[in-house]
Amino acid sequence: MLILTEKEIQNHYVMKDAISDLKKGLNSKKQGLITNPHRTVIEIPDNQASVLYMPGAELSQKIASVKVVSIFPKNPKHGMPTTQGILMLTDAQTGKHLCMMNASYLTRLRTGGLSGIATEKLARKDVKTLGVIGTGAMAFEQVLGVLEVRDIDKINLFNRTQEKAEQFKERLIDFGVKQPITIAANADEVVQAADVICCATRSNEPVFNGDLLKDGTHINGVGSYLPHMQEVDLTTIQKASKIVADDLKGVEEEAGELIHADRESDWSFTDLYGELSGLPDHNGLVRENDKEITFFKSVGAAYFDLVVAIGIYSKLQEIGVGSEVEV
Amino acid sequence: MLILTEKEIQNHYVMKDAISDLKKGLNSKKQGLITNPHRTVIEIPDNQASVLYMPGAELSQKIASVKVVSIFPKNPKHGMPTTQGILMLTDAQTGKHLCMMNASYLTRLRTGGLSGIATEKLARKDVKTLGVIGTGAMAFEQVLGVLEVRDIDKINLFNRTQEKAEQFKERLIDFGVKQPITIAANADEVVQAADVICCATRSNEPVFNGDLLKDGTHINGVGSYLPHMQEVDLTTIQKASKIVADDLKGVEEEAGELIHADRESDWSFTDLYGELSGLPDHNGLVRENDKEITFFKSVGAAYFDLVVAIGIYSKLQEIGVGSEVEV
Repeated sequence: MLILTEKEIQNHYVMKDAISDLKKGLNSKKQGLITNPHRTVIEIPDNQASVLYMPGAELSQKIASVKVVSIFPKNPKHGMPTTQGILMLTDAQTGKHLCMMNASYLTRLRTGGLSGIATEKLARKDVKTLGVIGTGAMAFEQVLGVLEVRDIDKINLFNRTQEKAEQFKERLIDFGVKQPITIAANADEVVQAADVICCATRSNEPVFNGDLLKDGTHINGVGSYLPHMQEVDLTTIQKASKIVADDLKGVEEEAGELIHADRESDWSFTDLYGELSGLPDHNGLVRENDKEITFFKSVGAAYFDLVVAIGIYSKLQEIGVGSEVEV
Repeated sequence: MLILTEKEIQNHYVMKDAISDLKKGLNSKKQGLITNPHRTVIEIPDNQASVLYMPGAELSQKIASVKVVSIFPKNPKHGMPTTQGILMLTDAQTGKHLCMMNASYLTRLRTGGLSGIATEKLARKDVKTLGVIGTGAMAFEQVLGVLEVRDIDKINLFNRTQEKAEQFKERLIDFGVKQPITIAANADEVVQAADVICCATRSNEPVFNGDLLKDGTHINGVGSYLPHMQEVDLTTIQKASKIVADDLKGVEEEAGELIHADRESDWSFTDLYGELSGLPDHNGLVRENDKEITFFKSVGAAYFDLVVAIGIYSKLQEIGVGSEVEV
């Protein structure tokens, strides 16, 4: 069995790879070649923690996987990360257990990659200013996903704790991002200037005012992944002419702001434009004009991890990275 | 993360350890400290194969686990094993992924250990002759489980292919089993002589005639783990004064011969005496006299693997066995 660390994956598998592998995966999903059973959540009540088991299978590449993620919110107090994820791949032709890999960067990368694909299909071709609301754990790869698909010439960040926005800016610069990066005093500033907005927060209340959105804006929202959360407000949902889900079933069960809108307003889940895998797959845009506001809502699903993990395994195995162990 | 191979586990963790750890686990189950969610089965239709994901948690020792078992019935044609299992442990206090271990020997050992515990509680104290029907993959540790808890002085084997019974006998001798071992021409011979019978087959039809059972016999049945299978006949089920399940929920869903009896006869699941974890936990016997026929039906459950895996991890980590890898 091949063991792959986060560092090994980061050194050899980048956003461009993830977007390419996710597109293959979306195609498999469309063809009915993805098995996506319900995840199992084990609650650890004493620690207000949980361990999630997310199995899945890709029947064209014939690989099954399970991602195991522990979520321990009190961990940072003890100097440990809140979430710790690993993923295991099993050959679905021989039953052999092939690979175990760290799943932290993988999860962030696939989330950013999905926003990249959504931006490629939904955002105007001439977008220039990227606004980022929330510079926490998932935000970095959101920026990379958008940069991969559009010629952005300015990045505008907002975070509740400004210091963290400063650190995030430094990290982008260190990574090699050349575009000028500014830090906004509030979310309004970000929204009023943005052509594309990435939200990656853990907020329970909307993080910006939808009235301020410019015509033609595209929004990626990867927070609000639990029913009680809200990241995008009802105005934005109502103004969006096309709302696309990463996974329809997942979004209906988990996307807090949409669940809220479905219950409390005229908007309903039947108004969703569709699922990322179901959008027209010609290379053109899905948006019909430059005025439309579009919104991509992402909550994640095991098969996105799976198809990126297959890509990581294939690439790193081929170039001889990782440690082979007998189990 | 600690990696443990089958060989390392076999060299350092034996039936006595498994029985001791399973007793701890049964006690946790009784106290409501076991989380035992439904397993997830991913079907691989092209290969008539499946991959099973079995998560669970032990809330007193604070460890969660998932066993992943691939079952590929066509594998032996290509020189590969039908089942390939691994198990991963996660610390339920910190969310840290602690250990990945081979789960083949572990599964056989916990199955044998459960039959050992059942035999200890249900078989007469003076049983002498052990009969074994079916000498396939699971049978070896069945014998070890019984030998651990009773002073057996004769072992009598039957297998449809006699050559495999001969090989099984050699394996027992190589392992250090001192009791005389004979090979019977048919199952009837085994049953007529036996005080304790272990059945470990994949049969779809009963493997012996219950009319031939001596008074006071105890039977362990670990085959018939799917609804269409049958290992023990209706006569045995009706003659048994106490039928004990390893896990009530599991047996009601999976134990073919009991499902069949429940549907087709006066016997019903309400006639089950109980679950192994619910039997009186004083050291005395559960059987009330030397005439009773008792039957232990075992189909397995994730938490049995889990508690044995915790024991393996604790013991091998303490003595410094296994390879530490970064993931």
